[in-house]
Order: sequence, then structure tokens, then C-alpha cells
Amino acid sequence: MTSVTVWNEYRHEREDDDVAAVYPDGIHAAIADCLSSDFEVRTATLEEPEHGLAEEVLASTDVLTWWGHLAHDAVADEVVDRVQEHVLEGMGLIVLHSGHFSKIFKRLMGTTCNLQWREDDRTERLWIVDPGHPIVEGLDECIELPETEMYGEPFDVPEPDRLVFTSWFEGGEVFRSGCCYRRGNGRIFYFRPGHETIPIYENEDVQQVLTNAVRWASPTDGSPRTFGNRP
Amino acid sequence: MTSVTVWNEYRHEREDDDVAAVYPDGIHAAIADCLSSDFEVRTATLEEPEHGLAEEVLASTDVLTWWGHLAHDAVADEVVDRVQEHVLEGMGLIVLHSGHFSKIFKRLMGTTCNLQWREDDRTERLWIVDPGHPIVEGLDECIELPETEMYGEPFDVPEPDRLVFTSWFEGGEVFRSGCCYRRGNGRIFYFRPGHETIPIYENEDVQQVLTNAVRWASPTDGSPRTFGNRP
Amino acid sequence: MTSVTVWNEYRHEREDDDVAAVYPDGIHAAIADCLSSDFEVRTATLEEPEHGLAEEVLASTDVLTWWGHLAHDAVADEVVDRVQEHVLEGMGLIVLHSGHFSKIFKRLMGTTCNLQWREDDRTERLWIVDPGHPIVEGLDECIELPETEMYGEPFDVPEPDRLVFTSWFEGGEVFRSGCCYRRGNGRIFYFRPGHETIPIYENEDVQQVLTNAVRWASPTDGSPRTFGNRP
Amino acid sequence: MTSVTVWNEYRHEREDDDVAAVYPDGIHAAIADCLSSDFEVRTATLEEPEHGLAEEVLASTDVLTWWGHLAHDAVADEVVDRVQEHVLEGMGLIVLHSGHFSKIFKRLMGTTCNLQWREDDRTERLWIVDPGHPIVEGLDECIELPETEMYGEPFDVPEPDRLVFTSWFEGGEVFRSGCCYRRGNGRIFYFRPGHETIPIYENEDVQQVLTNAVRWASPTDGSPRTFGNRP
Repeated sequence: MTSVTVWNEYRHEREDDDVAAVYPDGIHAAIADCLSSDFEVRTATLEEPEHGLAEEVLASTDVLTWWGHLAHDAVADEVVDRVQEHVLEGMGLIVLHSGHFSKIFKRLMGTTCNLQWREDDRTERLWIVDPGHPIVEGLDECIELPETEMYGEPFDVPEPDRLVFTSWFEGGEVFRSGCCYRRGNGRIFYFRPGHETIPIYENEDVQQVLTNAVRWASPTDGSPRTFGNRP
Repeated sequence: MTSVTVWNEYRHEREDDDVAAVYPDGIHAAIADCLSSDFEVRTATLEEPEHGLAEEVLASTDVLTWWGHLAHDAVADEVVDRVQEHVLEGMGLIVLHSGHFSKIFKRLMGTTCNLQWREDDRTERLWIVDPGHPIVEGLDECIELPETEMYGEPFDVPEPDRLVFTSWFEGGEVFRSGCCYRRGNGRIFYFRPGHETIPIYENEDVQQVLTNAVRWASPTDGSPRTFGNRP
Repeated sequence: MTSVTVWNEYRHEREDDDVAAVYPDGIHAAIADCLSSDFEVRTATLEEPEHGLAEEVLASTDVLTWWGHLAHDAVADEVVDRVQEHVLEGMGLIVLHSGHFSKIFKRLMGTTCNLQWREDDRTERLWIVDPGHPIVEGLDECIELPETEMYGEPFDVPEPDRLVFTSWFEGGEVFRSGCCYRRGNGRIFYFRPGHETIPIYENEDVQQVLTNAVRWASPTDGSPRTFGNRP
Repeated sequence: MTSVTVWNEYRHEREDDDVAAVYPDGIHAAIADCLSSDFEVRTATLEEPEHGLAEEVLASTDVLTWWGHLAHDAVADEVVDRVQEHVLEGMGLIVLHSGHFSKIFKRLMGTTCNLQWREDDRTERLWIVDPGHPIVEGLDECIELPETEMYGEPFDVPEPDRLVFTSWFEGGEVFRSGCCYRRGNGRIFYFRPGHETIPIYENEDVQQVLTNAVRWASPTDGSPRTFGNRP
């Protein structure tokens, strides 16, 4: 059974009553809940030793999901190194919302991962631009979210291997909100929705995307990655 | 000096008074006018012998622009073959608006090139998602067009080599409105704006894009394309 | 269970004793044999009515494999249209060896699909350049074929979405011999090995690739492909 | 006039007589010499303050070339940060040979950039797989180098935006030896040839590639890269 580790910074929920009201047990609990009917799910958070991402945890993780916002810099470089190694060896990585600015995403992309944004609370529609992609299985032609933060272009990431969603914002902007990458043997999916004060992870379409994305990002056996001196 | 041939179906303008009012000399005249200060420009239209695209015309063309809508099927397959050959050998091709359904674009893409659309007359914003691309030189962060027809996703084309513009439509849709491809040695740019009853080609930003796109699509010398039996 | 249709031109084997000695029941029989332990397999050949590819056959095919060489032009355009439509709707397509010059592959690529070649009978090594790809599952770092025809660059195809194999030829050439594409909802894999007088399809590694490729190219449900006027 | 900074680690040449015999003034001098007829060229080396890459140097550099081998770790992270920033803002970067393991290349790729290798001294042929690319202008169908070190696949880099060269090695391997990337506004070209004990940079074809690559990697003006809160 596919093994998922749901990582969360878990600060907003403990420091801000508005967030705690939406996610009383933390965003990780909401995501884990959504994935637990299909996968074997663990959670890990910043304050745990090694941020809950010790070698043995990663070694037994097929797909890691990542949510962070306030404390990207508090993540130890050593742990970022370790996560990167596991991704390159095949572990899937799903980066959510403000995780675009996490050390691990910037490390794997090689760019600033910067963007434009606005606290907005107006409608977002995530249009499917690649209806043949396994990540959109079971969805209609778009996902509508009545209240969201706005993220706008330019989004400073490498051209995605495959663009799956593009967002329309009522306020007048667009954003490449579902982007697929491969780095080494690992599959990486960036998915925009997920603000801390809006219960995005209770939306059924968003839950469907998360489930599909875990399946898509699960490792393939592949062939040997042999490097070095070849006699 | 870069040599451009501006091709136009030229039917709307002769059959419909509303279109004639906007483009009295044809859409090709408006486009040629915009490009003639930087390039050597000729025009060609459907009703001319060989649609104005005889071998000697194409052989001396660096970049061909294409506008068609009502009469895609009236373009002879033999001429489509010839244009395709020249593109593969290095001639640039700029496909405009409803040209997405032209035989030559479908031929080069290998897909239906279908999309969603609506006569709409509301605002479109073309956001630049690739600010480092030569096609956007001199532009601000987006192009705003107050009244346009809507084109929406899914757009059935191969994943672009490079996505340059994504459109936001007031009515709620998005569209990949500036797409770069290479086929053989030829550079291809699809650019969405250009409805027949709206004077899109008088917009300065649109004119800037057309000029930049011709420069970008101009042939490179490259190295030999040698095929066949290799002794 | 995944349903595979194995298409073969089936001319060499009936006209040339050397080929008949290698493939007495036709190349399609050898390929079908290799795939039949994992999939539901049918065969179809050029001489059958509609080349064995009637609408009801394609409608119940998940993945189509294609081998042709002498008689590409004998394939009716109407059947090519039909295969293209099914690919764009999601049917997988695996194009083998000299099938690079088939009407259906050229149609989907939009290029000449030309290359360099030599009857050579020396060694080919297919190196895996993408060890994380599902198509190479279970293979070692390269596939060695002791005697093959040479195919050399340039190979006039669009840049692959994903390059999986690159061939080394003893005679001094290289070739992109395993190329993945998506067109519409359909997955397309071009795989170079497969000459008619060499029993390539009895090679276990080649059989492994064919099996993996069928799995990879099988359709995904995805989301609706809705086109046209959007009120 | 395009301004080029040629960076070299400059250790081999001072520590090893065999290398000094080939490159008495350093590899940087040989590269600078080759580029100086077409561009404004400076050099910079590891032992200079800030490795010769102070802010004002980078701010006036259009394209930076990078050669390193023994002392990748001696490059200060702060300088790597600065080079990365300039690349993302548009400065071109040409990474040569063993520079695949430099901090700056690994930073921009997000992968290990590992590969297989062998001291070999047999023939390499760099085949052009993209004859329409500006980097191959003026070349024949391949570049032959009589004696080289071997680099083999897998090469742990992201799928190139554009693959230009693929190498054939007499010993039996292949390698993607000319790879184009864009990161932010910057163009990056990795080019394999360039061993320290073989006078590769005196080869006229290699010199042609370097000259073409500098032209290709030169910055484009583009449009604004505006990030952050958008009111």
C-alpha cells in the first residue's frame, strides 16, 4: 500500500485563533484525513526532532506532501538535503500553496519560485488544461473555489513538464496552479489551493486532486541509477 | 532584411459590412502595415492562384503569418503540403486567432486544435508567464483588450515548448494564448488575439507582439538536415 | 484487462523467404505472443477489410501497436483519420521501427519523421537515459542487440516529451530510440528496434519494454474534453 | 557588444605539468582567446577576491562561462547565490565539461548532475540532434574529437528544454552532451567537451559552438519580473 507522509509547519494553527477555528488539529490532520481511506498515512511537523523526517521515515515514504508558510527558514538544511536525495531516488513530493517558497521546492526548482499575491477572498476557478492527465481523473472541466487568496503570474519556476491546471481569479489574474515536474526519479506536483484560513482541504474536488496526485507521484521501479567511474 | 508574407483568407471583409468597416482593405493590409516599418512585407490571399503561395514566394519568405476563419477547407492540400515543407526547412509561421483551425496548424500540431469559445465582447487580459522571452520584449506585465471574443480551455494542442501568454477573460475562462513550438527547423507561434469585427491589430501591444514574433520566428542557419541511406 | 491490438503490414513475411524464416506467422504473431500473457491481445493486418481497424475494433482497444515498412501508402487515409481520433481520445499507440514513416506517426508528429539508416548488422546498445521511467522497469542500464540495422540522427520529430532510450551503434552513430509523446489524451511511444530479418521481438529485454510500454500507454480516465460554443 | 566573463578554477594548470603543457596560461586564457574576436571578454579565477565575481563584474556580464573540476567546494556559497541571482535575472551561463559538478550548475538544476565516466582517450562524436538550433550554426552533421574522456548516461539532470548534441563514444557509451535550459530569464547551456589534458578548446568546431552558445545565451530585454503583494 502506498505510504504517505503529510508534513506541516503547524504554526499558524497554534498561534492564530482564526486558523485554529478552521483547522483545530492542524492542516496536516485535515490532509491526512482526506488521504487515509486510500493510503497508509503518517504526519510529521516542524517541531518534532528532525522535523519528523528522520532517515527511516523518508526511507519508508512513497509520497511526501508539504505545507509551510511562516517558518520556511526554520527547516534545517540537513533535512532539506535528505528530502532532496529521497526525491531524486524516486520519492514523490506534493508541494501545497505557500509551500512554493519552501527550501525544498526552491532547491528542486533552482529558481526563486516567487509570484504575485493578494489577500482577496474572491472566486478562483482552476481550469483543467490537460484533460488526459491522471491527476484530473474524476473532475469536471474546472474546480471552483468561492473564496481564495490570489496568486498571480509571473511564477518563477522552470517550464513545467506538464501543466495541468491554470487558475482564473475574479480580481483579474491567472496562475499556473497545477504543475508537474520530474527531478531524478522523483515526481513533483505543485498545487496552489490551500490557504490557512479557508477550509480548502474539505473541498471534495481538492481532495480528489490530492488523492490522484499521490497515485501519480508514487515511485516507479525503473532501472538502476549507476554513476561514477565505469571501467 | 527579414522577408514576411502575410496570408489572409480575405472573405469576411468582402462579404460582411461590419468587418469591412473595421478592415476596409482586409486584415492582411492591417497586419502588413504594422510590420512594414521593420520588415520586407508581401501579402497573399486565398483567391489568388495557388492562394498566393507559389513555391517561389515561399522560397523567399522568412516568416509567414496566417489568418483564416470561414474557408479553412478551401485551402488546397497541395499548398498545405508546400507550406509544411517550408516550415520544416526553417520558415517561421505565425498563426493568428481563428487560424487555430487552419489545415496548416492542425497538420503541424497533429491534434484537433479545438477549444471552447463565446462571442463575448468583454475584457481579455493576456498575462505574460515568461517575462524572459523575446516575444514579450517591450511589453508591460499584461496586455489588456477591452472587447474580445472568448477562447477557453481545453485547447487541444501538444504541450507548447514554451508558453508565453495566458489569457484571463472577464466571463470566467482562461486560455493559453501565446504558444511557441518548433517543428523541424521551423519556429511556430500561435497568438490568440485577432477577431474580425474588433480592430485588434491596431492595438500597439498586439503590434509589438507581432513584430517581436516575426524576429523570433526568423530562420537560423543551423547545420545540414541530411536524411536517408548513410553508407 | 488492458486490450491490445497488434497491427502489422504483413507483406515482408509473405513475399520474402528470409523474413518468413524469422517470422513464419508474421511479426504481429511474435508481438502478440509476447504480450498475450499480460494483456488481452488481437491482431490486425493491412489486407483485412478496413485493415482490421474498423470503428468497433478501435473503440475496444486500449493500446494499438504499429509495424509497417513496405506499404505505408497503402493504408487508407480514412483509417488513419480514425486511428488519430482514437489516439486523441486516449488510445495508446506504440510505433515500432520502420513505423516511423507510417502515415499515422507522421500525422501525429507533424514532421517528416525522416532519419539516416544503414543495413549494418553490427551491435546496437540502447542506453537508458531516464532510469525513473515506467517503460524501463526491470531493465539493466542498457539493452544490447548484437546485430541491427542502424538508424541515425537527425531524427525529424518534435522534441520528445520524455526521451527514454538513446542508441549507440558500433558503426559510429547515435539515435533517440525511445521517445514518449502525448497528443490529446493519447500516449505515444516510438521504439526503434524491430527489423524484419532479425528476431528482435524474441529478445527478452525488448519484450519487457513492449510490456512496460503497453502499461504506460493505457488510457487514463481524465476529465471531459468539451469543445465548441460555451454559452 | 556582448560582454563575456570566462571563469576558471585554474588549479590543474598550476599544479600539474601535463596540464600546464596544454594550457600554459590556463584554460580560461584559451577560451577567452577563442571568444575575443567576437565579444568583449574578461577572465576570472577562483583565487581572486570573491573569485573574481564581485557584484559589479556580474552586473556588467552578459554571459558567464564556467570551468571547474578539483575545487568545486572551494567556491563560496555567497558567490554561488550571486551568480544564481544574475542568471535568473537574465545573464547567460555556459557550463563546460567537469563543471557539471559545480555548485552553480547543481543549484540551478536541482539534481545531483552525476554521470558515468572513464579516462579513455578514444574517439568521441558529438552528433547534432537539433539541426535548426542557433548553437549548431556553421557545423557539419557531427563534431569528431579523436581523444576524449568518456561521460556516459544516466546524466542526472532535468529533461533539457532542448537537446542539441548527443555524443557517441568509441568505447560503447552515449551522452547528452549539449543541453539547453532556461531558468528565470537566464539561458543555460551545458557543453561536455573540455578535458584539461587534451587541447579541446583549440578545435575549430568546439570554438564555433562556444561562439554560437554565447550569442544564444545573451540576455533578452523581455518584460518586467514583478513579484510580491499586488494590491
